[in-house]
Amino acid sequence: MPDNPIRPTIPLDAPGKRHGFLKLPHSRNDSAWGAQMIPLTVIGGAPGPTALLTGANHGDEYEGPIALQALAHELEPGALTGRLIILPFFNHPAFQAGTRVSPIDGVNLNRAFPGAPDGSVTQKIADYVARQLVPLADLVVDFHSGGKTLDFLPQACAHVLDDSAQQARCVAAARAFAAPYTLMLREIDAAGMYDSEVEGQGKTFVTTELGGGGTATARSARIARRGLRNLLIHAGHLPGEIEDPGTVMLDMPGDECYHAAPCSGLVEPLVDLGEAVHRGMALARIWPVERSGGAPETVLAQTEGILAARHFPGLTQIGDTLAVVAVPRR
Amino acid sequence: MPDNPIRPTIPLDAPGKRHGFLKLPHSRNDSAWGAQMIPLTVIGGAPGPTALLTGANHGDEYEGPIALQALAHELEPGALTGRLIILPFFNHPAFQAGTRVSPIDGVNLNRAFPGAPDGSVTQKIADYVARQLVPLADLVVDFHSGGKTLDFLPQACAHVLDDSAQQARCVAAARAFAAPYTLMLREIDAAGMYDSEVEGQGKTFVTTELGGGGTATARSARIARRGLRNLLIHAGHLPGEIEDPGTVMLDMPGDECYHAAPCSGLVEPLVDLGEAVHRGMALARIWPVERSGGAPETVLAQTEGILAARHFPGLTQIGDTLAVVAVPRR
Amino acid sequence: MPDNPIRPTIPLDAPGKRHGFLKLPHSRNDSAWGAQMIPLTVIGGAPGPTALLTGANHGDEYEGPIALQALAHELEPGALTGRLIILPFFNHPAFQAGTRVSPIDGVNLNRAFPGAPDGSVTQKIADYVARQLVPLADLVVDFHSGGKTLDFLPQACAHVLDDSAQQARCVAAARAFAAPYTLMLREIDAAGMYDSEVEGQGKTFVTTELGGGGTATARSARIARRGLRNLLIHAGHLPGEIEDPGTVMLDMPGDECYHAAPCSGLVEPLVDLGEAVHRGMALARIWPVERSGGAPETVLAQTEGILAARHFPGLTQIGDTLAVVAVPRR
Amino acid sequence: MPDNPIRPTIPLDAPGKRHGFLKLPHSRNDSAWGAQMIPLTVIGGAPGPTALLTGANHGDEYEGPIALQALAHELEPGALTGRLIILPFFNHPAFQAGTRVSPIDGVNLNRAFPGAPDGSVTQKIADYVARQLVPLADLVVDFHSGGKTLDFLPQACAHVLDDSAQQARCVAAARAFAAPYTLMLREIDAAGMYDSEVEGQGKTFVTTELGGGGTATARSARIARRGLRNLLIHAGHLPGEIEDPGTVMLDMPGDECYHAAPCSGLVEPLVDLGEAVHRGMALARIWPVERSGGAPETVLAQTEGILAARHFPGLTQIGDTLAVVAVPRR
Amino acid sequence: MPDNPIRPTIPLDAPGKRHGFLKLPHSRNDSAWGAQMIPLTVIGGAPGPTALLTGANHGDEYEGPIALQALAHELEPGALTGRLIILPFFNHPAFQAGTRVSPIDGVNLNRAFPGAPDGSVTQKIADYVARQLVPLADLVVDFHSGGKTLDFLPQACAHVLDDSAQQARCVAAARAFAAPYTLMLREIDAAGMYDSEVEGQGKTFVTTELGGGGTATARSARIARRGLRNLLIHAGHLPGEIEDPGTVMLDMPGDECYHAAPCSGLVEPLVDLGEAVHRGMALARIWPVERSGGAPETVLAQTEGILAARHFPGLTQIGDTLAVVAVPRR
Amino acid sequence: MPDNPIRPTIPLDAPGKRHGFLKLPHSRNDSAWGAQMIPLTVIGGAPGPTALLTGANHGDEYEGPIALQALAHELEPGALTGRLIILPFFNHPAFQAGTRVSPIDGVNLNRAFPGAPDGSVTQKIADYVARQLVPLADLVVDFHSGGKTLDFLPQACAHVLDDSAQQARCVAAARAFAAPYTLMLREIDAAGMYDSEVEGQGKTFVTTELGGGGTATARSARIARRGLRNLLIHAGHLPGEIEDPGTVMLDMPGDECYHAAPCSGLVEPLVDLGEAVHRGMALARIWPVERSGGAPETVLAQTEGILAARHFPGLTQIGDTLAVVAVPRR
Repeated sequence: MPDNPIRPTIPLDAPGKRHGFLKLPHSRNDSAWGAQMIPLTVIGGAPGPTALLTGANHGDEYEGPIALQALAHELEPGALTGRLIILPFFNHPAFQAGTRVSPIDGVNLNRAFPGAPDGSVTQKIADYVARQLVPLADLVVDFHSGGKTLDFLPQACAHVLDDSAQQARCVAAARAFAAPYTLMLREIDAAGMYDSEVEGQGKTFVTTELGGGGTATARSARIARRGLRNLLIHAGHLPGEIEDPGTVMLDMPGDECYHAAPCSGLVEPLVDLGEAVHRGMALARIWPVERSGGAPETVLAQTEGILAARHFPGLTQIGDTLAVVAVPRR
Repeated sequence: MPDNPIRPTIPLDAPGKRHGFLKLPHSRNDSAWGAQMIPLTVIGGAPGPTALLTGANHGDEYEGPIALQALAHELEPGALTGRLIILPFFNHPAFQAGTRVSPIDGVNLNRAFPGAPDGSVTQKIADYVARQLVPLADLVVDFHSGGKTLDFLPQACAHVLDDSAQQARCVAAARAFAAPYTLMLREIDAAGMYDSEVEGQGKTFVTTELGGGGTATARSARIARRGLRNLLIHAGHLPGEIEDPGTVMLDMPGDECYHAAPCSGLVEPLVDLGEAVHRGMALARIWPVERSGGAPETVLAQTEGILAARHFPGLTQIGDTLAVVAVPRR
Repeated sequence: MPDNPIRPTIPLDAPGKRHGFLKLPHSRNDSAWGAQMIPLTVIGGAPGPTALLTGANHGDEYEGPIALQALAHELEPGALTGRLIILPFFNHPAFQAGTRVSPIDGVNLNRAFPGAPDGSVTQKIADYVARQLVPLADLVVDFHSGGKTLDFLPQACAHVLDDSAQQARCVAAARAFAAPYTLMLREIDAAGMYDSEVEGQGKTFVTTELGGGGTATARSARIARRGLRNLLIHAGHLPGEIEDPGTVMLDMPGDECYHAAPCSGLVEPLVDLGEAVHRGMALARIWPVERSGGAPETVLAQTEGILAARHFPGLTQIGDTLAVVAVPRR
Repeated sequence: MPDNPIRPTIPLDAPGKRHGFLKLPHSRNDSAWGAQMIPLTVIGGAPGPTALLTGANHGDEYEGPIALQALAHELEPGALTGRLIILPFFNHPAFQAGTRVSPIDGVNLNRAFPGAPDGSVTQKIADYVARQLVPLADLVVDFHSGGKTLDFLPQACAHVLDDSAQQARCVAAARAFAAPYTLMLREIDAAGMYDSEVEGQGKTFVTTELGGGGTATARSARIARRGLRNLLIHAGHLPGEIEDPGTVMLDMPGDECYHAAPCSGLVEPLVDLGEAVHRGMALARIWPVERSGGAPETVLAQTEGILAARHFPGLTQIGDTLAVVAVPRR
Repeated sequence: MPDNPIRPTIPLDAPGKRHGFLKLPHSRNDSAWGAQMIPLTVIGGAPGPTALLTGANHGDEYEGPIALQALAHELEPGALTGRLIILPFFNHPAFQAGTRVSPIDGVNLNRAFPGAPDGSVTQKIADYVARQLVPLADLVVDFHSGGKTLDFLPQACAHVLDDSAQQARCVAAARAFAAPYTLMLREIDAAGMYDSEVEGQGKTFVTTELGGGGTATARSARIARRGLRNLLIHAGHLPGEIEDPGTVMLDMPGDECYHAAPCSGLVEPLVDLGEAVHRGMALARIWPVERSGGAPETVLAQTEGILAARHFPGLTQIGDTLAVVAVPRR
Repeated sequence: MPDNPIRPTIPLDAPGKRHGFLKLPHSRNDSAWGAQMIPLTVIGGAPGPTALLTGANHGDEYEGPIALQALAHELEPGALTGRLIILPFFNHPAFQAGTRVSPIDGVNLNRAFPGAPDGSVTQKIADYVARQLVPLADLVVDFHSGGKTLDFLPQACAHVLDDSAQQARCVAAARAFAAPYTLMLREIDAAGMYDSEVEGQGKTFVTTELGGGGTATARSARIARRGLRNLLIHAGHLPGEIEDPGTVMLDMPGDECYHAAPCSGLVEPLVDLGEAVHRGMALARIWPVERSGGAPETVLAQTEGILAARHFPGLTQIGDTLAVVAVPRR
């Protein structure tokens, strides 16, 4: 396999706290001998396990970057057991551009795994992290939110896995995060996901959806910070007590949870996140935008539960996922 | 003064309900003999006053377009006293692009008044509405929200005016809208605003800020629909009772209400909309984005009140308005 | 082989007429959970063969989309024997953009076969159609025209094939189309073409070139509609008589038929489509565009026949195919 | 009035044939001390009148540039009476970009008159030609075609003018051009047109519409060359006989001649250029492009005559001029 | 005259050293309530005169920004007599984009004076500086270099002025700068220049051209720093001795000094900056780029002197200023 | 292996001098049947070896194109022994755009080897040259310079190779070029380089770095022309004497020669090309660009030698290679 040109500018296995970069040489029109410099913090404490913590896998999701920049700045190694490898901005080019996918190669990092050492910029990042960093970790946490085009109920997520012991570890970790909601889901199309790569290596894996719209709120940032601290306590990295205000367990049993826009237009939402949904209820109207006076199309619920995610922009295109209904566990 | 080439495709003074366009010939690379077609609905009922109703003055604000498309579709002329002139998408090119300013000429419609009949596309729209439509109206309502980069507490607004009788009319109308909040403000820099043009013609004028982020919610859309119906009842256009769940009166006394970003970076909000603010309180942190481990800059409140508006995107640029504090009236 | 995520939203094998989509999930900056929705109509009539009908393989070619949208709207299943699978806009993203190749990945659909189930958007479309739809068909018709940069004599085409029985079926079908011209050609570089994929599966295949310039005329649209109806009669799908006003058989014997621009500049055509060409005749002059007064370069015919295709835009770049001469069969 | 920085690089009043430029200094990012160099040919012959000849007023119209480049190259001063000032590429930046309006400032040259000496690039060109070149001329000819988005019956045009003697001169010149069609029209909105500027200076003015679609054909180029030669004979610049195969006189009596697209979509033309139109006849259908199976909207003729111009691209946007009907004079 | 919305965030008349901004509110798609923040440093020392110092009038010129950022950082108020108002990045949006003209409005700041308080972003900056800052100053220094498309011999410049006393002051200041070359020139087209605005207010004005190509070298940065220190000593702001290694006085007597590219192509320079030029000497060849084997066009010197400026990029467009010859004073 | 569609338009093995193209069919939106036409000159003289000469491997490097266009134009076959195959513009699309990488596919040609016959445009060029042209050659010369973002001391280069006889041939050829500097280097990451491809085929290979900044000077163009003539004499293609003014041998022993920018900002260089560097010496300062008054970051030398290459643009991004130190051989 060809060599991946990415190199960390700091050691991955030294004690103490160091801030550096994953440096990826990148020759381009505006810098013949330039590089992508992906910020990296490594904190080594007392002997113990390793956690790999990533934010901004999608570049327009902000709760993870906030919690991880704060952790990198605030945590002192003396307080730590084991090691934390922190990439606050996993897809740094996308994060700087404020976009979901990389502006350099148009690639969605979360569909690029296992990556390629001689591929495009995003594929190289995927390959390096999958082959060099994930194997070092016991716990892997990847922060997500809805980004600029989706909005979610704040939740930690675990996947249904073939290995029930691994699944139990993951569920326990997701539950320890103590987000307002905790989701169990089976990925339909897991090809290329970071989640699959990490789970395939047998790691304990937690991901989140903590809000959306391309913003963070004071509330969602606090959920991210608290959940991260809880997880690190759960995994034995930090001392102290988990702060758990309770969570609602959610399931997303099937395709009928997803409601797509039947046409393009102006969205009038009729249900907000967290509100109850019953089958046949009108979830949204889509109004025409080329002329006035026309009738809207109405999107009806195909199942019952609560509204767990929604299309964010005021305009929709045909086929966009408008509304996702999840089923609270009783 | 040169002739403005805009023509309505339907009569403005006929009884009944008609849907058409303001047609503005627009020669360009992709259509030598093309036109901008701005949707227009006119509803004439029993003899009475005229209201001019506009949404999407800024193209990325959605509560107004929803309420006005619904009104144009749902209202029957038999239920109406007087006349409604409805432009659900005032800056239609910007609305279709989902942008604040027009993609055609880069002009902010709400800073383009009184416009110019031989100016750019946006200036022609401003001129036509200011000289041909506003004079026909008794009441003018212009719906705003925060757009993709701001978020507001839902509010109707009236301006401090030199003519106290006119101001009283405007305040009464804004109060009748019955949004959760009602704001009195004095525009510092009113040059070019539609508000100033309309008020300068002596009209009763109400504007709103009903949310933001480039989305609408079920709640904000309901506030817009209810407020519009309340206003039309207040102005004698519709029968029925105003639905008023109460409002909080707000003032924005001075420049100290506005808090600008002291640097560019990643925003961690510390206060959410509607929460109490006291002087010296930390409103937000701004984290660095080029490297990890650095300290954030903290933005402190310069006054006390409640958080009434905030910067929406997760990233900020230096000089962006990050937080606006308003003072609830006791 | 990985799974192709494209799914039809309607059954492919039910009787009656149904309109739906090929739905291709497509995560991108402006819609994290969006989809490409490629319009699809399936009409099932009395038991019989299946025809797969496609337009807008290149997005700027219009006769096919017109004839197929009309067919999908107008044909009643009671009149039909067998089944029609209709994709009026094969490369829907390109069709909506008015471009030859897809604006999403820059791929020319007609050079993307056999496609890839985990490739780019265009590659997924190619894979799905090649592996899921073509095998269902007896007859495959793919409408082409010259697009924005070429103009053609209206013609149906069949290829010289190794299997003479298959070739005879194809020629008979092309002849049944009854376009003003019918072309026999041997593709020099058939790699990646839909034609090759379909013919490789042993199907009866007809393609066309019905005009060009990025427009349709009343005449060319009528040729498309008539030819389509003729073909469906020929293949036993529709009753009735073929309407055949006669055709001119054309051959394109070799490389000398193609005349490339020897320099960039302003094109003065000297021969129009369908006019006779003799060897050494001036086909076009190319005038300089940076200064006035200079001499043009003249392009001379390398063979004799009639002008069958020409470069459409008024400006040419060096290397563009300026003129194609075909030989009418005597 | 400020100075216009444009200077010709050759004398305008010397005998013989010279090729140079109108040089307009233009400081920009890619050339701090650069210039726009607009090709210019001046031919001085025996004493006599002056003709000012322009092509590519819109940059995507090609018959004029062909005829004028050919004239500049081929005509010898010994054959000439008077003087020809030739600008084959009036809006040279647009011509090089292949666009209707200038890529530098987005201005439509034919709506920029009388221009401004200290304005944008296009406004400076307009000012220079209006104030420095038009006053030198007796006859002014401005070649137009339909460009990339319109297609016209080939025609020379004269305007209805207040000064009947001037109008008679213009009509005689347009008739001498001997295009297949000759149009008399009254400009509704003549503000900013080159036509108005020239006519306002009392000049004999001829303009044309010789085809369209952003191409030239052998036929349309021959019409342009022949018409130009005819005009120069008519005006006493060249010896010889006018070649007149006859023309059809057309009028465009009113707004009902223009048919706009009632919605966006795929155009199916039902009548071609030059074909007869009767009131109520279907001129075109507009098919939906987001889904298959829907009904088209049909555009009906509002008047009778022949189809004189049509929308060229296969897709239309609402408000585009789809079809223009003119009335042949009996 | 309308109010200019620009406000300094620090006092202009306080003692000591302060760093702030000129804040210009700027509503746009990516920040509805954003601002342009133009860095500003004011240093007040012992009573004395005022100097206004600007760099990056054109955004791709770097010696001025280096010398002024260094001065703002390094100079202590205790060492200063009078006041320095420092704008290291006069056209800050252009500087951040690395472009000559502003990316916001496409305006060349050095052709935008006297500006407009209600104009575009660049026009507002021009107006504010012209009306609020220049009147405060005794000495005005505006640093220029060649930018990305020109390269200059390092020089300070003074203009030929109608007021000989003012001219003498300016020449003395330019001479005190002690650049390797000192140029006297008469602006042919001074309309809109900052130079003219400042000189028209009677100020002592020095400008420079210190290199080019969009880079700075160690040598050119040292010339800028030394020249600035020399000027401040000359004007009485700083103590110490002027460091003067000698200068060569240059004149640019007329239009024949400027040599434009006669065609587009690849530039082969034959003379370097500072080398002697005699009339008729070949200055450069321009090679064709579309094909190989053709002959170059040769540019001959129209006058004698030394090469003082040259076109920088390896490719040229017709009309670009390729070479400027200046005449050393004996 | 699939067929590469590139064909030369002239024979590669005929005597005399011929100018033509490598023609690569390229279907795209602006030309459905277009082609990339890469200029090619072949000169055949008396029997002898073959040299393959390329410029503009990166499209913004100009000394090679100048020297090779001059050679193609000026050299007569009668003076030649053997054969020269000349591609003055190896990556012609990039050369015409003035960019390092191809504007068509974004690929860096010098990282695209061995290429792919059915790949993107740049990959096809790489494949054709590697498989069809390099095998014909004894000597291969590939001209480089720094391009728009780097600047180099003028140098010919040879690589440290496993085959010491081949290395000796390469070193002798590089030395014969007689540039002011001659560099021996071991490529760390040679994957995809043309150099590696050519050396892997056992050829004598010379490359250069002759300047930079996206320009050529009279001096650098003379070095290129002289070096090329020297090489052709050295290889037995031309008669005459090598002109050798002496060279400085340089080594680049390790990673410590490369100095990357530790942050983004405005670069103040402190050392110029060719100047001596000692360990710990300040090479450059990087000043902040968002505000004034802040301290710069200083880049210190990690080794000693002379400055051999530097970042060219006035602004830098974090990770850009700012300075390269080489070690002169004693």
